Amino acid sequence: MLKSIAGYRWSYFIILPILFFFYFKIESIQYRIFTFVQYLKCNVMIGDLILRNRSYRRFDESVKISFEQLMSWIDLARLSASGRNAQPLKYILSFDSEKNKKIFSTLGWAAYLKDWDGPVAGERPSAYIVQLLDTSIGMNFFCDDGIAMQSILLGAVEEGFGGCIFRTINKPKLMELLSIPEKFQIINVIAFGKPIEKVVIEEIREGDFKYWRDEKEVHHVPKRSLEEIVLKI
Amino acid sequence: MLKSIAGYRWSYFIILPILFFFYFKIESIQYRIFTFVQYLKCNVMIGDLILRNRSYRRFDESVKISFEQLMSWIDLARLSASGRNAQPLKYILSFDSEKNKKIFSTLGWAAYLKDWDGPVAGERPSAYIVQLLDTSIGMNFFCDDGIAMQSILLGAVEEGFGGCIFRTINKPKLMELLSIPEKFQIINVIAFGKPIEKVVIEEIREGDFKYWRDEKEVHHVPKRSLEEIVLKI
Repeated sequence: MLKSIAGYRWSYFIILPILFFFYFKIESIQYRIFTFVQYLKCNVMIGDLILRNRSYRRFDESVKISFEQLMSWIDLARLSASGRNAQPLKYILSFDSEKNKKIFSTLGWAAYLKDWDGPVAGERPSAYIVQLLDTSIGMNFFCDDGIAMQSILLGAVEEGFGGCIFRTINKPKLMELLSIPEKFQIINVIAFGKPIEKVVIEEIREGDFKYWRDEKEVHHVPKRSLEEIVLKI
Repeated sequence: MLKSIAGYRWSYFIILPILFFFYFKIESIQYRIFTFVQYLKCNVMIGDLILRNRSYRRFDESVKISFEQLMSWIDLARLSASGRNAQPLKYILSFDSEKNKKIFSTLGWAAYLKDWDGPVAGERPSAYIVQLLDTSIGMNFFCDDGIAMQSILLGAVEEGFGGCIFRTINKPKLMELLSIPEKFQIINVIAFGKPIEKVVIEEIREGDFKYWRDEKEVHHVPKRSLEEIVLKI
Protein backbone atom coordinates (compact mmCIF):
# COMPACT_ATOMS: atom_id res chain seq x y z
CA MET A 1 0.00 0.00 0.00
CA LEU A 2 2.82 2.35 0.87
CA LYS A 3 4.31 1.81 -2.51
CA SER A 4 0.96 2.74 -4.00
CA ILE A 5 0.86 6.07 -2.17
CA ALA A 6 4.53 6.83 -2.67
CA GLY A 7 4.20 5.94 -6.25
CA TYR A 8 1.94 8.88 -6.79
CA ARG A 9 4.55 11.63 -6.59
CA TRP A 10 1.90 14.26 -6.67
CA SER A 11 0.28 12.65 -3.64
CA TYR A 12 2.88 14.57 -1.73
CA PHE A 13 1.08 17.69 -2.80
CA ILE A 14 -1.90 16.34 -0.94
CA ILE A 15 -0.28 14.80 2.06
CA LEU A 16 2.17 17.58 2.80
CA PRO A 17 -0.46 20.31 2.77
CA ILE A 18 -2.63 18.13 5.01
CA LEU A 19 0.29 17.67 7.38
CA PHE A 20 1.02 21.39 7.17
CA PHE A 21 -2.60 22.18 7.90
CA PHE A 22 -2.48 19.95 10.93
CA TYR A 23 0.77 21.60 11.93
CA PHE A 24 -0.84 24.98 12.10
CA LYS A 25 -4.00 23.63 13.60
CA ILE A 26 -2.02 21.87 16.29
CA GLU A 27 0.21 24.81 16.87
CA SER A 28 -2.80 27.03 17.23
CA ILE A 29 -4.47 24.84 19.81
CA GLN A 30 -1.22 23.96 21.54
CA TYR A 31 -0.18 27.55 21.50
CA ARG A 32 -3.41 28.68 23.02
CA ILE A 33 -3.32 26.07 25.77
CA PHE A 34 0.31 26.68 26.47
CA THR A 35 -0.02 30.46 26.44
CA PHE A 36 -2.80 30.24 28.95
CA VAL A 37 -0.76 27.98 31.22
CA GLN A 38 2.24 30.24 30.88
CA TYR A 39 0.03 33.26 31.48
CA LEU A 40 -1.13 31.67 34.69
CA LYS A 41 2.44 30.77 35.50
CA CYS A 42 3.66 34.31 34.84
CA ASN A 43 0.79 35.74 36.81
CA VAL A 44 1.90 33.94 39.93
CA MET A 45 5.50 34.76 39.30
CA ILE A 46 5.92 37.35 42.03
CA GLY A 47 4.70 34.86 44.62
CA ASP A 48 7.16 32.31 43.34
CA LEU A 49 10.04 34.81 43.39
CA ILE A 50 9.19 35.93 46.91
CA LEU A 51 9.05 32.33 48.14
CA ARG A 52 12.44 31.66 46.59
CA ASN A 53 13.87 34.86 48.01
CA ARG A 54 14.98 33.37 51.31
CA SER A 55 18.01 34.61 53.24
CA TYR A 56 20.75 32.27 52.06
CA ARG A 57 24.07 31.96 53.83
CA ARG A 58 25.89 29.22 51.95
CA PHE A 59 26.74 29.40 48.29
CA ASP A 60 28.63 27.71 45.50
CA GLU A 61 31.48 30.18 45.41
CA SER A 62 32.71 28.84 42.07
CA VAL A 63 29.65 30.38 40.39
CA LYS A 64 30.60 33.95 39.60
CA ILE A 65 28.34 36.96 39.34
CA SER A 66 29.19 39.59 36.78
CA PHE A 67 29.35 43.36 36.94
CA GLU A 68 26.52 43.52 34.40
CA GLN A 69 24.28 41.33 36.52
CA LEU A 70 24.85 43.44 39.60
CA MET A 71 24.20 46.61 37.62
CA SER A 72 20.94 45.20 36.27
CA TRP A 73 19.76 44.42 39.80
CA ILE A 74 20.70 47.86 41.06
CA ASP A 75 18.76 49.28 38.13
CA LEU A 76 15.68 47.64 39.65
CA ALA A 77 16.36 49.55 42.87
CA ARG A 78 16.91 52.75 40.90
CA LEU A 79 13.46 52.39 39.34
CA SER A 80 11.75 51.69 42.66
CA ALA A 81 9.98 54.21 44.88
CA SER A 82 11.93 56.61 47.06
CA GLY A 83 10.60 58.81 49.88
CA ARG A 84 10.12 62.36 48.52
CA ASN A 85 11.76 60.89 45.41
CA ALA A 86 15.04 62.16 46.86
CA GLN A 87 16.93 58.95 45.98
CA PRO A 88 19.77 59.45 48.48
CA LEU A 89 21.01 55.86 48.39
CA LYS A 90 24.15 54.91 46.48
CA TYR A 91 25.88 51.61 45.87
CA ILE A 92 29.29 49.94 45.75
CA LEU A 93 29.63 46.64 43.89
CA SER A 94 32.00 43.81 44.56
CA PHE A 95 32.42 40.72 42.44
CA ASP A 96 36.14 39.89 42.52
CA SER A 97 37.67 37.75 45.20
CA GLU A 98 40.05 40.35 46.66
CA LYS A 99 37.32 42.90 47.27
CA ASN A 100 34.92 40.17 48.39
CA LYS A 101 37.40 39.06 51.06
CA LYS A 102 37.58 42.60 52.44
CA ILE A 103 33.82 42.89 52.70
CA PHE A 104 33.43 39.38 54.12
CA SER A 105 35.83 40.25 56.93
CA THR A 106 33.46 42.95 58.22
CA LEU A 107 30.20 40.96 58.36
CA GLY A 108 28.49 39.22 61.27
CA TRP A 109 26.62 36.09 60.23
CA ALA A 110 23.43 34.57 61.63
CA ALA A 111 23.27 35.76 65.21
CA TYR A 112 21.00 32.88 66.28
CA LEU A 113 23.37 30.17 65.05
CA LYS A 114 25.77 30.26 67.99
CA ASP A 115 28.01 27.42 66.78
CA TRP A 116 28.45 28.77 63.29
CA ASP A 117 30.99 31.39 62.29
CA GLY A 118 29.71 31.90 58.78
CA PRO A 119 30.28 30.05 55.53
CA VAL A 120 33.58 28.29 54.96
CA ALA A 121 35.85 29.02 52.01
CA GLY A 122 34.20 27.73 48.86
CA GLU A 123 30.73 28.51 50.26
CA ARG A 124 31.09 32.25 50.62
CA PRO A 125 29.24 34.87 48.58
CA SER A 126 30.32 35.53 45.01
CA ALA A 127 29.33 39.19 45.13
CA TYR A 128 28.22 42.00 47.38
CA ILE A 129 26.36 45.27 47.11
CA VAL A 130 27.11 47.87 49.78
CA GLN A 131 24.19 50.26 50.21
CA LEU A 132 25.16 53.76 51.32
CA LEU A 133 23.45 57.00 52.25
CA ASP A 134 24.82 60.03 50.43
CA THR A 135 24.49 62.58 53.22
CA SER A 136 25.00 65.43 50.76
CA ILE A 137 21.51 64.65 49.40
CA GLY A 138 19.83 64.25 52.77
CA MET A 139 19.99 62.53 56.14
CA ASN A 140 16.69 60.66 55.88
CA PHE A 141 16.14 57.73 53.55
CA PHE A 142 12.71 56.73 54.98
CA CYS A 143 12.03 53.14 53.92
CA ASP A 144 14.02 53.41 50.68
CA ASP A 145 16.60 50.88 51.86
CA GLY A 146 14.14 48.00 52.28
CA ILE A 147 12.26 48.82 49.06
CA ALA A 148 15.53 48.94 47.10
CA MET A 149 16.96 45.77 48.58
CA GLN A 150 13.78 43.81 47.93
CA SER A 151 13.88 44.89 44.28
CA ILE A 152 17.56 43.96 44.01
CA LEU A 153 17.09 40.56 45.62
CA LEU A 154 14.04 39.66 43.53
CA GLY A 155 16.09 40.44 40.44
CA ALA A 156 18.85 38.15 41.65
CA VAL A 157 16.41 35.37 42.52
CA GLU A 158 14.79 35.59 39.10
CA GLU A 159 18.19 34.72 37.62
CA GLY A 160 18.69 31.77 39.93
CA PHE A 161 20.80 33.46 42.59
CA GLY A 162 20.01 34.31 46.20
CA GLY A 163 21.25 36.62 48.89
CA CYS A 164 21.20 37.81 52.44
CA ILE A 165 20.91 41.28 53.96
CA PHE A 166 23.46 42.31 56.59
CA ARG A 167 23.11 45.01 59.18
CA THR A 168 25.72 43.56 61.54
CA ILE A 169 28.67 45.21 59.87
CA ASN A 170 31.95 46.55 61.19
CA LYS A 171 31.29 49.87 59.53
CA PRO A 172 34.49 51.76 60.43
CA LYS A 173 36.54 48.83 59.15
CA LEU A 174 34.55 48.62 55.91
CA MET A 175 34.78 52.40 55.36
CA GLU A 176 38.54 52.07 55.66
CA LEU A 177 39.02 48.89 53.63
CA LEU A 178 37.07 50.27 50.68
CA SER A 179 38.25 53.87 51.14
CA ILE A 180 34.70 55.17 51.21
CA PRO A 181 34.52 58.97 51.37
CA GLU A 182 33.18 60.45 54.60
CA LYS A 183 30.03 61.91 53.13
CA PHE A 184 28.68 58.36 52.75
CA GLN A 185 27.20 56.27 55.56
CA ILE A 186 27.00 52.50 55.26
CA ILE A 187 23.38 51.38 55.65
CA ASN A 188 23.29 47.72 54.60
CA VAL A 189 25.32 45.10 52.79
CA ILE A 190 23.72 42.44 50.59
CA ALA A 191 25.63 39.24 49.85
CA PHE A 192 24.89 37.23 46.68
CA GLY A 193 25.66 33.81 45.34
CA LYS A 194 24.28 30.57 43.97
CA PRO A 195 22.61 29.10 47.06
CA ILE A 196 23.56 25.59 48.11
CA GLU A 197 21.48 25.38 51.21
CA LYS A 198 17.88 24.42 51.63
CA VAL A 199 15.70 26.92 53.49
CA VAL A 200 12.23 25.95 54.68
CA ILE A 201 9.49 28.12 56.05
CA GLU A 202 7.49 26.75 58.94
CA GLU A 203 4.78 27.86 61.28
CA ILE A 204 5.92 29.87 64.27
CA ARG A 205 5.39 28.10 67.60
CA GLU A 206 4.84 29.83 70.93
CA GLY A 207 6.09 33.06 69.47
CA ASP A 208 9.64 31.74 68.91
CA PHE A 209 10.80 33.45 65.75
CA LYS A 210 14.43 32.37 65.83
CA TYR A 211 15.62 30.56 62.73
CA TRP A 212 17.49 27.34 63.31
CA ARG A 213 19.48 24.71 61.46
CA ASP A 214 18.86 20.97 61.73
CA GLU A 215 21.37 18.09 61.63
CA LYS A 216 21.01 17.91 57.84
CA GLU A 217 21.96 21.60 57.66
CA VAL A 218 18.49 22.58 56.46
CA HIS A 219 17.72 26.12 57.57
CA HIS A 220 14.31 26.56 59.21
CA VAL A 221 12.55 29.92 59.30
CA PRO A 222 9.42 30.25 61.46
CA LYS A 223 6.88 32.69 60.04
CA ARG A 224 3.83 34.21 61.72
CA SER A 225 0.51 33.24 60.19
CA LEU A 226 -1.55 35.58 58.07
CA GLU A 227 -4.28 35.50 60.72
CA GLU A 228 -1.81 36.71 63.31
CA ILE A 229 -0.43 39.63 61.32
CA VAL A 230 -3.75 40.97 59.97
CA LEU A 231 -5.63 42.68 62.76
CA LYS A 232 -9.38 42.26 62.97
CA ILE A 233 -9.93 46.00 62.98
CA MET B 1 -6.42 10.41 -6.11
CA LEU B 2 -8.07 11.30 -2.86
CA LYS B 3 -10.66 8.68 -3.49
CA SER B 4 -7.86 6.23 -4.05
CA ILE B 5 -6.27 6.97 -0.70
CA ALA B 6 -9.58 7.21 1.14
CA GLY B 7 -10.65 4.05 -0.47
CA TYR B 8 -8.03 2.14 1.38
CA ARG B 9 -9.62 2.17 4.83
CA TRP B 10 -6.51 0.80 6.38
CA SER B 11 -4.51 3.65 4.83
CA TYR B 12 -5.78 5.58 7.80
CA PHE B 13 -3.65 3.31 9.94
CA ILE B 14 -0.71 4.67 7.99
CA ILE B 15 -1.68 8.29 7.60
CA LEU B 16 -2.99 8.84 11.10
CA PRO B 17 0.14 7.51 12.79
CA ILE B 18 2.23 9.64 10.45
CA LEU B 19 0.16 12.67 11.36
CA PHE B 20 0.38 11.72 15.01
CA PHE B 21 4.12 11.33 14.72
CA PHE B 22 4.36 14.76 13.19
CA TYR B 23 2.07 16.08 15.91
CA PHE B 24 4.49 15.00 18.56
CA LYS B 25 7.50 16.01 16.57
CA ILE B 26 6.04 19.46 15.97
CA GLU B 27 4.83 19.84 19.49
CA SER B 28 8.25 18.94 20.75
CA ILE B 29 10.01 21.54 18.61
CA GLN B 30 7.27 24.13 19.07
CA TYR B 31 7.18 23.46 22.72
CA ARG B 32 10.90 23.90 23.05
CA ILE B 33 10.95 27.15 21.09
CA PHE B 34 7.92 28.50 22.86
CA THR B 35 9.14 27.47 26.30
CA PHE B 36 12.37 29.27 25.65
CA VAL B 37 10.57 32.43 24.54
CA GLN B 38 8.26 32.25 27.52
CA TYR B 39 11.24 31.54 29.73
CA LEU B 40 12.82 34.72 28.46
CA LYS B 41 9.54 36.53 28.90
CA CYS B 42 9.09 35.28 32.43
CA ASN B 43 12.68 36.02 33.20
CA VAL B 44 12.18 39.72 32.62
CA MET B 45 8.98 39.78 34.56
CA ILE B 46 10.35 41.39 37.73
CA GLY B 47 11.74 44.28 35.69
CA ASP B 48 8.35 44.77 34.08
CA LEU B 49 6.56 44.70 37.45
CA ILE B 50 9.00 47.16 38.97
CA LEU B 51 8.60 49.55 36.03
CA ARG B 52 4.82 49.38 36.40
CA ASN B 53 5.04 49.85 40.15
CA ARG B 54 4.94 53.63 40.06
CA SER B 55 3.42 55.74 42.84
CA TYR B 56 -0.11 56.34 41.56
CA ARG B 57 -2.42 58.95 43.03
CA ARG B 58 -5.52 58.82 40.85
CA PHE B 59 -7.65 55.74 40.47
CA ASP B 60 -10.87 54.43 39.03
CA GLU B 61 -12.72 54.23 42.32
CA SER B 62 -15.48 52.11 40.80
CA VAL B 63 -13.03 49.20 40.54
CA LYS B 64 -13.19 47.44 43.88
CA ILE B 65 -10.46 45.47 45.60
CA SER B 66 -11.48 42.47 47.64
CA PHE B 67 -10.49 41.26 51.07
CA GLU B 68 -8.98 38.15 49.48
CA GLN B 69 -6.79 40.21 47.16
CA LEU B 70 -5.48 42.32 50.02
CA MET B 71 -4.82 39.20 52.10
CA SER B 72 -2.89 37.62 49.23
CA TRP B 73 -0.68 40.71 48.93
CA ILE B 74 -0.04 40.81 52.65
CA ASP B 75 0.88 37.14 52.42
CA LEU B 76 3.73 38.23 50.13
CA ALA B 77 4.94 40.56 52.88
CA ARG B 78 4.58 37.79 55.45
CA LEU B 79 6.89 35.58 53.39
CA SER B 80 9.50 38.29 52.92
CA ALA B 81 12.62 38.83 54.99
CA SER B 82 12.45 40.42 58.42
CA GLY B 83 15.32 41.73 60.54
CA ARG B 84 16.22 39.07 63.15
CA ASN B 85 13.13 37.33 61.73
CA ALA B 86 11.20 39.07 64.52
CA GLN B 87 8.30 40.00 62.19
CA PRO B 88 6.95 42.84 64.39
CA LEU B 89 4.81 44.44 61.66
CA LYS B 90 1.05 43.96 61.60
CA TYR B 91 -1.63 45.14 59.20
CA ILE B 92 -5.13 46.61 59.05
CA LEU B 93 -7.08 46.27 55.80
CA SER B 94 -9.68 48.59 54.39
CA PHE B 95 -11.77 47.96 51.29
CA ASP B 96 -15.21 49.38 52.05
CA SER B 97 -16.10 53.00 51.41
CA GLU B 98 -16.86 53.98 55.03
CA LYS B 99 -13.53 52.82 56.36
CA ASN B 100 -11.75 54.14 53.25
CA LYS B 101 -13.17 57.61 53.91
CA LYS B 102 -11.81 57.58 57.44
CA ILE B 103 -8.32 56.66 56.28
CA PHE B 104 -8.41 59.09 53.36
CA SER B 105 -9.17 61.94 55.77
CA THR B 106 -5.82 61.42 57.55
CA LEU B 107 -3.47 61.36 54.53
CA GLY B 108 -1.31 64.11 53.03
CA TRP B 109 -0.97 63.81 49.27
CA ALA B 110 1.96 64.70 47.01
CA ALA B 111 3.83 67.39 48.89
CA TYR B 112 5.43 68.77 45.70
CA LEU B 113 2.10 69.35 43.93
CA LYS B 114 1.18 72.58 45.68
CA ASP B 115 -2.04 73.19 43.75
CA TRP B 116 -3.41 69.73 44.26
CA ASP B 117 -5.31 68.58 47.33
CA GLY B 118 -5.40 64.94 46.42
CA PRO B 119 -7.71 62.91 44.20
CA VAL B 120 -11.32 63.98 43.81
CA ALA B 121 -14.26 61.73 44.63
CA GLY B 122 -14.41 58.96 42.06
CA GLU B 123 -10.63 58.95 41.73
CA ARG B 124 -9.74 57.98 45.28
CA PRO B 125 -8.19 54.68 46.36
CA SER B 126 -10.37 51.59 46.51
CA ALA B 127 -8.44 50.05 49.38
CA TYR B 128 -5.77 50.70 51.97
CA ILE B 129 -3.34 48.73 54.08
CA VAL B 130 -2.22 50.34 57.32
CA GLN B 131 1.18 49.01 58.40
CA LEU B 132 1.74 48.97 62.16
CA LEU B 133 4.52 48.12 64.58
CA ASP B 134 3.44 45.77 67.35
CA THR B 135 5.56 47.20 70.16
CA SER B 136 4.93 44.09 72.29
CA ILE B 137 7.23 42.21 69.87
CA GLY B 138 9.92 44.88 69.69
CA MET B 139 10.64 48.53 69.04
CA ASN B 140 12.89 48.07 66.03
CA PHE B 141 11.63 46.94 62.65
CA PHE B 142 14.91 47.62 60.76
CA CYS B 143 14.09 47.82 57.06
CA ASP B 144 11.15 45.42 57.29
CA ASP B 145 8.66 48.11 56.33
CA GLY B 146 10.16 48.84 52.93
CA ILE B 147 10.77 45.19 52.14
CA ALA B 148 7.17 44.30 53.05
CA MET B 149 5.62 47.20 51.16
CA GLN B 150 7.59 46.45 48.00
CA SER B 151 6.37 42.85 48.12
CA ILE B 152 2.78 43.99 48.68
CA LEU B 153 2.87 46.54 45.87
CA LEU B 154 4.46 44.16 43.36
CA GLY B 155 1.68 41.70 44.11
CA ALA B 156 -0.91 44.40 43.47
CA VAL B 157 0.79 45.51 40.25
CA GLU B 158 0.94 41.95 38.97
CA GLU B 159 -2.88 41.92 39.18
CA GLY B 160 -3.23 45.19 37.33
CA PHE B 161 -3.55 47.52 40.32
CA GLY B 162 -1.22 50.17 41.65
CA GLY B 163 -0.59 52.05 44.84
CA CYS B 164 1.17 54.74 46.76
CA ILE B 165 3.01 54.74 50.06
CA PHE B 166 2.11 57.39 52.62
CA ARG B 167 4.20 58.59 55.51
CA THR B 168 2.44 61.93 55.84
CA ILE B 169 -0.35 60.69 58.06
CA ASN B 170 -2.32 62.28 60.86
CA LYS B 171 -1.47 59.39 63.14
CA PRO B 172 -3.37 60.39 66.30
CA LYS B 173 -6.50 60.93 64.20
CA LEU B 174 -6.10 57.57 62.43
CA MET B 175 -5.45 55.76 65.74
CA GLU B 176 -8.72 57.19 67.02
CA LEU B 177 -10.83 56.72 63.88
CA LEU B 178 -9.90 53.03 63.61
CA SER B 179 -9.76 52.44 67.40
CA ILE B 180 -6.25 51.03 67.14
CA PRO B 181 -4.96 49.70 70.47
CA GLU B 182 -2.11 51.65 72.05
CA LYS B 183 0.49 48.92 71.74
CA PHE B 184 0.52 49.53 67.96
CA GLN B 185 2.33 52.38 66.22
CA ILE B 186 1.34 53.45 62.72
CA ILE B 187 4.35 53.18 60.40
CA ASN B 188 2.99 53.59 56.87
CA VAL B 189 -0.23 53.53 54.91
CA ILE B 190 -0.46 52.11 51.39
CA ALA B 191 -3.31 53.18 49.11
CA PHE B 192 -4.46 50.91 46.26
CA GLY B 193 -6.64 51.19 43.22
CA LYS B 194 -6.88 50.78 39.46
CA PRO B 195 -4.61 53.60 38.27
CA ILE B 196 -6.01 56.09 35.78
CA GLU B 197 -3.02 58.35 35.54
CA LYS B 198 0.04 58.04 33.36
CA VAL B 199 3.36 58.16 35.17
CA VAL B 200 6.58 58.60 33.24
CA ILE B 201 10.14 58.23 34.43
CA GLU B 202 12.65 60.75 33.14
CA GLU B 203 16.25 61.65 33.62
CA ILE B 204 16.98 63.87 36.58
CA ARG B 205 18.24 67.34 35.61
CA GLU B 206 20.54 69.47 37.73
CA GLY B 207 19.78 67.35 40.75
CA ASP B 208 16.10 68.34 40.84
CA PHE B 209 14.31 65.21 42.04
CA LYS B 210 10.85 66.71 42.56
CA TYR B 211 8.10 64.96 40.65
CA TRP B 212 5.77 67.20 38.67
CA ARG B 213 2.58 67.10 36.67
CA ASP B 214 2.17 68.54 33.18
CA GLU B 215 -0.87 70.21 31.59
CA LYS B 216 -2.10 66.83 30.36
CA GLU B 217 -1.95 65.57 33.96
CA VAL B 218 0.88 63.18 33.16
CA HIS B 219 2.97 62.62 36.26
CA HIS B 220 6.74 62.97 35.71
CA VAL B 221 9.24 61.30 38.02
CA PRO B 222 12.91 62.22 37.62
CA LYS B 223 15.27 59.34 38.42
CA ARG B 224 19.03 59.41 38.96
CA SER B 225 21.07 57.49 36.42
CA LEU B 226 22.69 54.16 37.16
CA GLU B 227 26.09 55.78 36.67
CA GLU B 228 25.29 58.33 39.34
CA ILE B 229 24.12 55.85 41.99
CA VAL B 230 26.85 53.24 41.54
CA LEU B 231 30.08 54.54 43.00
CA LYS B 232 33.33 53.82 41.18
CA ILE B 233 34.88 52.31 44.30
